[in-house]
Amino acid sequence: MSNLLFYNAAILTIDPEYRTYENGFICIQGDRIEAIGPSQAMTDLGDFAAYRKIDCGGKIIMPGMINTHCHMSMMVFRSLADDVPDRLRRYLFPLEARAMNRELAVTGARYAMAELLLGGVTTVYDAYYFEDDIAEAVAASGMRGVLSETVMNTPTPSAAQPYGGIPYTRNFVKKWQGHPRVMPAVNCHALYTNDTEHLRECHRIAADHDVTMCMHVAEMDFEQQKCRDEFGLTPVGYLHQIGILDERFLAAHAINVDDQDIDILADCGVNVSYNAGSNAKSAKGVAPVAKMMAKGIPVSLGTDGPMSGNTIDIVTQLSLVGKIQKLFQNDRSLFPPREILRMATINGAKALRMDHLVGSLERGKRADMVIFETDSVNMSPIYDPSAAIVYSANPSNVWATIVDGEILMENRKLLTLNFESAKQDLLRSCQKIEAIAKTLDREIATHN
Amino acid sequence: MSNLLFYNAAILTIDPEYRTYENGFICIQGDRIEAIGPSQAMTDLGDFAAYRKIDCGGKIIMPGMINTHCHMSMMVFRSLADDVPDRLRRYLFPLEARAMNRELAVTGARYAMAELLLGGVTTVYDAYYFEDDIAEAVAASGMRGVLSETVMNTPTPSAAQPYGGIPYTRNFVKKWQGHPRVMPAVNCHALYTNDTEHLRECHRIAADHDVTMCMHVAEMDFEQQKCRDEFGLTPVGYLHQIGILDERFLAAHAINVDDQDIDILADCGVNVSYNAGSNAKSAKGVAPVAKMMAKGIPVSLGTDGPMSGNTIDIVTQLSLVGKIQKLFQNDRSLFPPREILRMATINGAKALRMDHLVGSLERGKRADMVIFETDSVNMSPIYDPSAAIVYSANPSNVWATIVDGEILMENRKLLTLNFESAKQDLLRSCQKIEAIAKTLDREIATHN
Repeated sequence: MSNLLFYNAAILTIDPEYRTYENGFICIQGDRIEAIGPSQAMTDLGDFAAYRKIDCGGKIIMPGMINTHCHMSMMVFRSLADDVPDRLRRYLFPLEARAMNRELAVTGARYAMAELLLGGVTTVYDAYYFEDDIAEAVAASGMRGVLSETVMNTPTPSAAQPYGGIPYTRNFVKKWQGHPRVMPAVNCHALYTNDTEHLRECHRIAADHDVTMCMHVAEMDFEQQKCRDEFGLTPVGYLHQIGILDERFLAAHAINVDDQDIDILADCGVNVSYNAGSNAKSAKGVAPVAKMMAKGIPVSLGTDGPMSGNTIDIVTQLSLVGKIQKLFQNDRSLFPPREILRMATINGAKALRMDHLVGSLERGKRADMVIFETDSVNMSPIYDPSAAIVYSANPSNVWATIVDGEILMENRKLLTLNFESAKQDLLRSCQKIEAIAKTLDREIATHN
Repeated sequence: MSNLLFYNAAILTIDPEYRTYENGFICIQGDRIEAIGPSQAMTDLGDFAAYRKIDCGGKIIMPGMINTHCHMSMMVFRSLADDVPDRLRRYLFPLEARAMNRELAVTGARYAMAELLLGGVTTVYDAYYFEDDIAEAVAASGMRGVLSETVMNTPTPSAAQPYGGIPYTRNFVKKWQGHPRVMPAVNCHALYTNDTEHLRECHRIAADHDVTMCMHVAEMDFEQQKCRDEFGLTPVGYLHQIGILDERFLAAHAINVDDQDIDILADCGVNVSYNAGSNAKSAKGVAPVAKMMAKGIPVSLGTDGPMSGNTIDIVTQLSLVGKIQKLFQNDRSLFPPREILRMATINGAKALRMDHLVGSLERGKRADMVIFETDSVNMSPIYDPSAAIVYSANPSNVWATIVDGEILMENRKLLTLNFESAKQDLLRSCQKIEAIAKTLDREIATHN
């Protein structure tokens, strides 16, 4: 870590006033933002002799993007079975049962981190298996991670016993709490894979340690059905009734929520991760994001796993969010680019309860930021940098990714992660998976 | 033009059998595909002494993509007024009346061609103004273009008189017919900007010269309303009644079409350009693509202008097509990657009536093709190259673009178009436009 001075950049602070500097500078001391403002104000601050100075030549700087819902390890399965209906139960659970293990989980996560850092994601929320091993990999990469072991009522790749995720989580939370960049969390997979007693137990762990508790909520038609049949309630109504919704709760998806559900989520201070691409590709529906945000819920953006999205950067989600929400609401004026960029940054920080640290570029906050180049053909013209990032940019335009003042990716090169070795590991793993996947394809074809 | 041999590539031919070669070669002699097949069959064909040999090292080769609806010159307006409702009438027509001229039209089109070629588009359908000048630029770039001057009942940037586009089109068609890569066409803007008499006149020109006639069809709510009020018909019903729908007709958008409309389109042999991104961002609706294709209409892909999309490559549309169509049909199994790639290639060729020449990689056809690199982080793993291109790729992954056997872009470098000069021209133009745009923004804000 050294002191850094970036100047001659367009800066989107995404602070509460959405301050922007057409030609600005940002000065980083250690892990913090020391000063930020228009480039002409820079001379008042001294000669910056002890700083590495980076002339950004018109590049765009904004806060690092926050992916609030991912299953990184599933990278090893990306582009398998894209079009299989009821895929979770018919394809994914069997595939995981036959193929997933500790080595694959780490291999997938390492490669996924390469994609996240190359795509400008500084913080990821991850839920999968073998998260203790994944946490080691995240810590080594230098990126910020909120990580959680999945709890389910069946054996999983990391637990021979049903609900084996619970003792795993207890140890995991104790071990990682206090780490500067890895934050442990609790993850109950869903209400159709967890009973009331264990949901409450998970909630107690989260409350005792004051950590995030995440869950897939109101995502599946059969989840809705089960809740109606068994409890006469919506998924949100049920989770509220059993007393586990609070400001630590992060609801992933929240597609099938009605007005009453939205009131409950807002009243309880629940955070929501909207997964535009995954929800569309799986034909599950469109979360009523405008309504949730109107009630004060800070809706953030997630990608879901790489088998669902299929990319896990957030840049690709930005334009999708605008397009799908405008289309679904039949209103072109909704979701201007600034609102979408807030969802990708400060709302993600709020969802993971770290908005006092990151999510906007403000003096005193941690220096988590991303730099977009503007040389590529799709990055001109720029009448409005926010619009250019939302509707013109793609993840290959990200030029640098910085966490806690440490440059983790610069000029498309990863500095803390060996891309070539991560890729070779991934490709080797995929050879093993291919045979299992082909068997599953055949079984599903026979069953149809 | 020289003889080229590409080998050691994954090849998607997109021929009628969707033949693919995991490790294949393609041999180009002059402007034609001389041979194609698995790499091990290559040795039977001689020593290729007179060929430039390119080891593709696992890259993916497929037919060049065809953008069947674009307004290239509007590149100078990209990212202006993204969120203004009823934008065409409130913002765009006034903006064009105040700002557009011959120089801007050419500047925008040249830069747009850079984006198209860097994004793997080998053929573009363009409709705008000053198309004679744009045709010169397209011919110089070496890309394939089907180009048309817009006909409207008002003065336009290129015509002082209403319907000035008609005499322009007569000259334009005569001048360019027979050019090897530039094909002239006829373009009536829409039924709300053209009366019956002039629509019929345009249709006669297209019929007399056997060229494509394009029109925005069933795109706007007010278009639907006007047709119902004045003729008691749907837009498609009206166009059919006045006798202008035939196999030369290319309907752009086709959002508001009912089952009867679809039968008419299919019976008349009309082609359709589906503009997934533009239609979503403008909240106009979702074209019933599955129904149209079930009736045999070869639906192809367009981007609309860069003010609408906002990118004009086709790669970005691929995943959007799958996501939006699956979502709105509530069926994950629809639109597998292969079908989407057919829409992007062979269906585009059918829409522009050049499928005997291009749109698939087959012996004897013109060598219009695109090569994707597989080194970037988002391009692994690849269990299925079609799925990887549809759901993982972005336009920056395009490594080469070839038209008529001529390499127009290789390793991200344009070979027939000076990118830096095109960009400087664009940025200079945008400085002039910015003041006009700000005035318009103020007028619209006041009017609200």
